[in-house]
Amino acid sequence: MPQDTFDKIMTLAKRRGFIYPSFEIYGGVAGFYDYGPLGSQLKNNIENLWRKYYLLKDNCVEINTPTVTLYEVLDASGHVDEFTDVTVDCKKCKTSYKVEDIIDKKLTVEQAIKEDKIKCPTCGSKLKDPHDVNLMFSTGIGIGDSRKAFLRPETAQGIFTNFHLLYRHAREKLPFGVVQIGKGYRNEVSPRQGIIRLREFSMAEAEIFFDPKDKTHQNFDSVKDKELYLFDNKKETKLSLEKAVKTKVINNQALAYYMYLTQDFLINVGVDPKKFRFRKHAPDELAHYATECWDAELYTERFGWIECVGIADRSAYDINAHIESSGTDMYAQRKFDEPKIVEMKKIVPKMGVLGPLFKDKAGKIKEILEKMDAKESKKISVTVDGKTIDIPKDCYEVVETKEKVSGEKFVPHVIEPSYGIDRILFCVLEHNYIETKKKDEEYTILKLKPSIAPIKVGIFPLVNDEKLVKIAEKIDVDLRNAGIPTYYDDGGTIGRRYARMDEIGTPFCITVDHDSLKDKSVTVRDRDTTEQERKKIEEVITYIKEKFLH
Amino acid sequence: MPQDTFDKIMTLAKRRGFIYPSFEIYGGVAGFYDYGPLGSQLKNNIENLWRKYYLLKDNCVEINTPTVTLYEVLDASGHVDEFTDVTVDCKKCKTSYKVEDIIDKKLTVEQAIKEDKIKCPTCGSKLKDPHDVNLMFSTGIGIGDSRKAFLRPETAQGIFTNFHLLYRHAREKLPFGVVQIGKGYRNEVSPRQGIIRLREFSMAEAEIFFDPKDKTHQNFDSVKDKELYLFDNKKETKLSLEKAVKTKVINNQALAYYMYLTQDFLINVGVDPKKFRFRKHAPDELAHYATECWDAELYTERFGWIECVGIADRSAYDINAHIESSGTDMYAQRKFDEPKIVEMKKIVPKMGVLGPLFKDKAGKIKEILEKMDAKESKKISVTVDGKTIDIPKDCYEVVETKEKVSGEKFVPHVIEPSYGIDRILFCVLEHNYIETKKKDEEYTILKLKPSIAPIKVGIFPLVNDEKLVKIAEKIDVDLRNAGIPTYYDDGGTIGRRYARMDEIGTPFCITVDHDSLKDKSVTVRDRDTTEQERKKIEEVITYIKEKFLH
Repeated sequence: MPQDTFDKIMTLAKRRGFIYPSFEIYGGVAGFYDYGPLGSQLKNNIENLWRKYYLLKDNCVEINTPTVTLYEVLDASGHVDEFTDVTVDCKKCKTSYKVEDIIDKKLTVEQAIKEDKIKCPTCGSKLKDPHDVNLMFSTGIGIGDSRKAFLRPETAQGIFTNFHLLYRHAREKLPFGVVQIGKGYRNEVSPRQGIIRLREFSMAEAEIFFDPKDKTHQNFDSVKDKELYLFDNKKETKLSLEKAVKTKVINNQALAYYMYLTQDFLINVGVDPKKFRFRKHAPDELAHYATECWDAELYTERFGWIECVGIADRSAYDINAHIESSGTDMYAQRKFDEPKIVEMKKIVPKMGVLGPLFKDKAGKIKEILEKMDAKESKKISVTVDGKTIDIPKDCYEVVETKEKVSGEKFVPHVIEPSYGIDRILFCVLEHNYIETKKKDEEYTILKLKPSIAPIKVGIFPLVNDEKLVKIAEKIDVDLRNAGIPTYYDDGGTIGRRYARMDEIGTPFCITVDHDSLKDKSVTVRDRDTTEQERKKIEEVITYIKEKFLH
Repeated sequence: MPQDTFDKIMTLAKRRGFIYPSFEIYGGVAGFYDYGPLGSQLKNNIENLWRKYYLLKDNCVEINTPTVTLYEVLDASGHVDEFTDVTVDCKKCKTSYKVEDIIDKKLTVEQAIKEDKIKCPTCGSKLKDPHDVNLMFSTGIGIGDSRKAFLRPETAQGIFTNFHLLYRHAREKLPFGVVQIGKGYRNEVSPRQGIIRLREFSMAEAEIFFDPKDKTHQNFDSVKDKELYLFDNKKETKLSLEKAVKTKVINNQALAYYMYLTQDFLINVGVDPKKFRFRKHAPDELAHYATECWDAELYTERFGWIECVGIADRSAYDINAHIESSGTDMYAQRKFDEPKIVEMKKIVPKMGVLGPLFKDKAGKIKEILEKMDAKESKKISVTVDGKTIDIPKDCYEVVETKEKVSGEKFVPHVIEPSYGIDRILFCVLEHNYIETKKKDEEYTILKLKPSIAPIKVGIFPLVNDEKLVKIAEKIDVDLRNAGIPTYYDDGGTIGRRYARMDEIGTPFCITVDHDSLKDKSVTVRDRDTTEQERKKIEEVITYIKEKFLH
């Protein structure tokens, strides 16, 4: 069977140490892959370039929260109820399928169920009883798994549950952005697309908090004439950011700005611009938390267009959910130009009732009640030490007062660019995979950008002469000490050594030859032009640094 | 109650965004912490400095494998049986305790059990029935959790299970090293020491594979006169690497070399050398896989000496275990100087018996059998598609042959430096936390090394004058574009702004004042000397870069 590009890349990826199937010696499990030495470095480089965009250019901060996540967090966020796939089980084959994967592409899942058109792809049986299956990995914390928990389906909730602390860190000014890079988990029913559909994946997410009345972005003007590649599910167009926002194709500046940042990042990371587009989610495909979403899609030969980044307006959904579930004050504050007189309903706790009823918890309950606004909740409940307690009506009075207030509180909105690092990494490999011939032999080049290539420089002594080796080894050590990853290779002809480096995307090779002893120079060869330049050894670090930083 | 240093640091850490308790809005859970904006950056910087030591100096490669780990892997490695704590449950308090935590410090766990001396620290009841509890978080993969799995207790197994691929990547030469940085998990019975005892933690592990006949290290000579701080459980001594190895205090060069690398790293990361030592494990405290182990211990005010790095000789334990359990060829090859004639016992499969018995698996079984050496196993079993199958004796013959062989295979040994990043991070905060007074007010300085400080430069316009702000903002953007994290602050007096930066360990502050308009210069203030230098704006990036790279 002739290999398609996917197979060729996965074969190369395994042979050269980019990607290995996980647990292979124990038969493997679908949906898990390991990054080998080169893949791991490539992934680090992609993530660090991402950090440059979000931490240094866009001035976000980064946080890092556990992957094991308490049940309460994901219950509040809606994931316990909504993070599901419609699934059917074939009783004959003993296999379960995600309905979406096995129905006629022209049908929606709803149609297929209604029209009873689900068949087992293996044995052809008609399949009945489609049902929702939650996709989170579950686990338990402590002895006897005393507290229920899941592996996080997204890094975002770790940011939302800290909003009040992060808002204080930002000195109570909006907008501000918080990112997290780390593992996400999705216990897929039956993943069949290799590294494209992982059960454990790497994500980079940014949550930018805005005042809902002001979704402008301070850098918007500097990029407003740039064009975005858009696809509205019918045709592709190019549109400037300014026009897209003005004509409401994109709902606000912030969303458009982060789409541009995403496009610029992806192209900089090495995605082929011709295999890139933004596609708008139709209303019925939006996630439970999103009001608008654009996917950055990248084209792959085997799978067609795949979603690699989702840029969603999550509105006030998540913070609202956590305010309601936890009772924590997670509001932001908007200052009025002038103080206003406002009617308020305040809760005045009756300690005579609260005290005997809740004993040592009464003090904490009183504190929470005094901060609450009676307008917003009919039934009053508070969360103390992780437990939600309903407060009977005779424990408090509601008093109407007028107060002079200098501002009002509100729930901020969130714009979320969420990147699937593994899919981007795969597309970068595919888009830069070049097959050619050299002297009638097949020859492969990975044209990775110097900034993300795992190895920056191959270093070769022309022959295994002690004097040449000594110079080559010194250049190797000097480059490494300057922070530049190298690969020292003294095996085979120089042609074969170039070939080995071309195949893994190394942009430069340095050869030390007999002339080096006299002229203190070496040959620097460029992967893409195959041109060779003679450079002084003492200038070689600066020369290479210059090259790969741009 | 007066706060001890631990409390003070945790208060500062929460207030300024280093460390937050996880899931706090839902009552929190012991053993989980979040890294806030500054903590996250500090952690990244520590990990990247670690990479410089292991990837660039020591020439290891890095890989990245899933946290969800198949049951079979951890069964083979011994963790299913051995990764346990002796635990007792108090029926009165309904609490479980790790026996080690609640017994008299002078007793061992074995003594306490034998002498029936375990009491509940809360209610004083005598506690009975101590039993082993496994400390791995368990989960399941697929619908109905059809495959059992755990969250990895260490990153190392992801390296061992790929040994054969990594050996090929290293072009079949020993020694070579492979590292992994990532999350590890330990479902502690009752963690009570804040960030020191986490249920989800960050680790950096290196597995260096050696020929057991040659545990020398090529860089040993360059450091052999350096001294190590050693503690043999009785007294502390300083010993040169050379002497330590010669006198067998440390068993081999490799172990000593990685101890030195660890010591150098820790001191470079900002650990106080007076609060640092290596302690040798007594035979009865060695982990199930180790033959020798040295802990790098750091001193903390509340917890005393704590283990932050373990440097163990794991010998052939793990690779042997995976060879036996999976049947995969994970041997290394040692070339003879001259070929030898060797007697061999070969397995010759009988397809006539194998075929009908194992049907479509027979081919795979045949392949595995042919590669096996009959000398090593009496009962023969093979692993196919994740299942272990015992092969009846009538399925094969054992044939003795003589063959000319050019080398022999062996199981490599492993030296493992394993770093607990969270503990190191905490100790770096504690060892660099300085309380002083300024104008009779309490004043805190974190003397973090410039290379690991989360923010490198504070940038202040002296007053909010548009002209000064413009210059300050440009310096801010220029520094960020040069990869230098900054904090722009225009609030309060310059003294208060310095104080804010000193408290989070920012080594440099730049102030733009009215003179800057004329002389195109700014004031650069050094945190540790509090000296202020006037520098040309155009030279400021180079000046700062020079400072923090060393």
